[in-house]
Amino acid sequence: MRSTTGWQADGHALHRVPLSRRDLRHDDIAVRVDFCGVCHTDLHSLRAHDGKGVLVPGHEFTGVVLDIGSEVTKFRVGDPVAVGNIVDSCGVCTMCAMGQENFCREFPTLTYGGTDRHDGTTTLGGFSREYVVRDRFAHPLPSELDPAAAAPLLCAGITVWEPMRALGVGPGTRVAVAGLGGLGHLAVKFAAALGAEVSVVSRSADRASDAIRLGARDVVVSTDPESVEASRDRFDVLIDTIPVAHDLGPYLRLVAVDGTLSQVGYLGAISLETMDLLVGRKKLSSGGSGGLPATTAMLEFCAAHGITADVEVLPSARVAEALDRLDRGDVRHRFVLDLSDLG
Amino acid sequence: MRSTTGWQADGHALHRVPLSRRDLRHDDIAVRVDFCGVCHTDLHSLRAHDGKGVLVPGHEFTGVVLDIGSEVTKFRVGDPVAVGNIVDSCGVCTMCAMGQENFCREFPTLTYGGTDRHDGTTTLGGFSREYVVRDRFAHPLPSELDPAAAAPLLCAGITVWEPMRALGVGPGTRVAVAGLGGLGHLAVKFAAALGAEVSVVSRSADRASDAIRLGARDVVVSTDPESVEASRDRFDVLIDTIPVAHDLGPYLRLVAVDGTLSQVGYLGAISLETMDLLVGRKKLSSGGSGGLPATTAMLEFCAAHGITADVEVLPSARVAEALDRLDRGDVRHRFVLDLSDLG
Repeated sequence: MRSTTGWQADGHALHRVPLSRRDLRHDDIAVRVDFCGVCHTDLHSLRAHDGKGVLVPGHEFTGVVLDIGSEVTKFRVGDPVAVGNIVDSCGVCTMCAMGQENFCREFPTLTYGGTDRHDGTTTLGGFSREYVVRDRFAHPLPSELDPAAAAPLLCAGITVWEPMRALGVGPGTRVAVAGLGGLGHLAVKFAAALGAEVSVVSRSADRASDAIRLGARDVVVSTDPESVEASRDRFDVLIDTIPVAHDLGPYLRLVAVDGTLSQVGYLGAISLETMDLLVGRKKLSSGGSGGLPATTAMLEFCAAHGITADVEVLPSARVAEALDRLDRGDVRHRFVLDLSDLG
Repeated sequence: MRSTTGWQADGHALHRVPLSRRDLRHDDIAVRVDFCGVCHTDLHSLRAHDGKGVLVPGHEFTGVVLDIGSEVTKFRVGDPVAVGNIVDSCGVCTMCAMGQENFCREFPTLTYGGTDRHDGTTTLGGFSREYVVRDRFAHPLPSELDPAAAAPLLCAGITVWEPMRALGVGPGTRVAVAGLGGLGHLAVKFAAALGAEVSVVSRSADRASDAIRLGARDVVVSTDPESVEASRDRFDVLIDTIPVAHDLGPYLRLVAVDGTLSQVGYLGAISLETMDLLVGRKKLSSGGSGGLPATTAMLEFCAAHGITADVEVLPSARVAEALDRLDRGDVRHRFVLDLSDLG
């Protein structure tokens, strides 16, 4: 076994502890984790943690290859690398065959809290100094991208990238993005770089300058009936990144005839009125994570367009502060932990 | 006022009564109603009727033009004509301007239970011998179509036609139709005539011969786990015509990656799990009724392809029997009332 250090849940708090990683299999690489983004999922997992099992959060990270398995040709020691929220899948189902490992019929192995398909152990996440991962599920990190600012691309980024690409966002598409957190601010950058006309939907007009700096043309203020009415039936695609349960009706009313609301920020039961979809023949979809080919394409696009997340980098010892501020929405736009303080 | 006869609610039953129709406005036509389809909406309206206001159901009918207003050029006396569930709209909003009068922002005037935009009276439906309607909302009935069998096209037909056209159903599209009632059986006919590969989703395998006669290739038996598993992630478009609240999860699992479940048979609140949409990036839409241009296109398509509903025609005096059997699902595939018994 390989020894490292990481932040493990003890109750609902994270504590620095020694961790073990498996010895490299033939197709594994060991990654020195330099930067790991802090996702709402980390917050939810920590809160839901019942003390059973081992929880080390973190599923969007970048680093450097430390060691490679006997049959690895994709990476060499020293290569910059990026890992997202999936580290394995069955590889043979129709979903895997079409490059949608995130929809694997046998369920993909999650980066933390998952069950390793070979040894049955619980996967431990990227809030640690080292991670061992199957080479196929690690991505070369383009040299153009800052490793700290690139980390959030691997979960927040791909989660908004994949539905926008599937919905054909491009020149002329009218895109709205609800919420300007980690996912939302990347959705604005992507949509603008794809040539779309981008608006931000926000509860307050004071996000306007931020939205426009990110690439939006204007802001629809969801608490202002006049602003909402002026944008009724306006958007071909609305990417809803709001991370808590909310009424979809007001957002659907902003969607154009035959347009789609893609809801990516919330996992759980949705309730909606048929009429909110029916009037305007609108569509509701839901997204989360992405497949390997889409992730590769996103990283190449980001390299070509100079896109990374807007991040606030904190030493990993301040992870509790990052989680607390994320919970309060006090983040512009994603916290990233610098794991170098783990040695 | 013009005098006629119709079937009006007294409590939850329909009774034959004399009715008045307005004198013709400059753009009105008077229609002798020959055949009117019996829709689930009629059943729901009658059950929900609280005794306040006047209820005469019926919103998919065919007949002959009896008289025309001073400025009507679209019709001549004696023309065969068809009317659906909308008889007016504001005409100036963005929805009306794009030919989606069914989504009129001022709400369209419904064929019964609506409020006339000029005199404020409650509209009375097609379970009567005469109807007066604005010419713009009446459609020439192609001479190729049997008037009795064509009546259901005007509500059941357009309700499934419009979403299928919007979703691009055509050669190569894999379409599933859930439910084989008035809407479902027309969806199968339309999809097959559009060149799609059509399957029917039914609770029981005994609908197979009926489904195949209508144009389907096979039947997915929703109560048979093996049958469902074999068609998992299979359909680009699933038209769900089930007229009561039901769990959408099992039906979404039949939808292909990036495919759409269009739910057309039920109006009310929907509850679903985000994961049922997320896994496979599936879309949910809802449909009902259609705009004037789509209705015209559908009637032309039906004339060209010889499509009408499979109907059981009953004298209108047997309307209670039709409603009762509809409620029990005992219909192949739509009841149509013959109004000639009203004189």
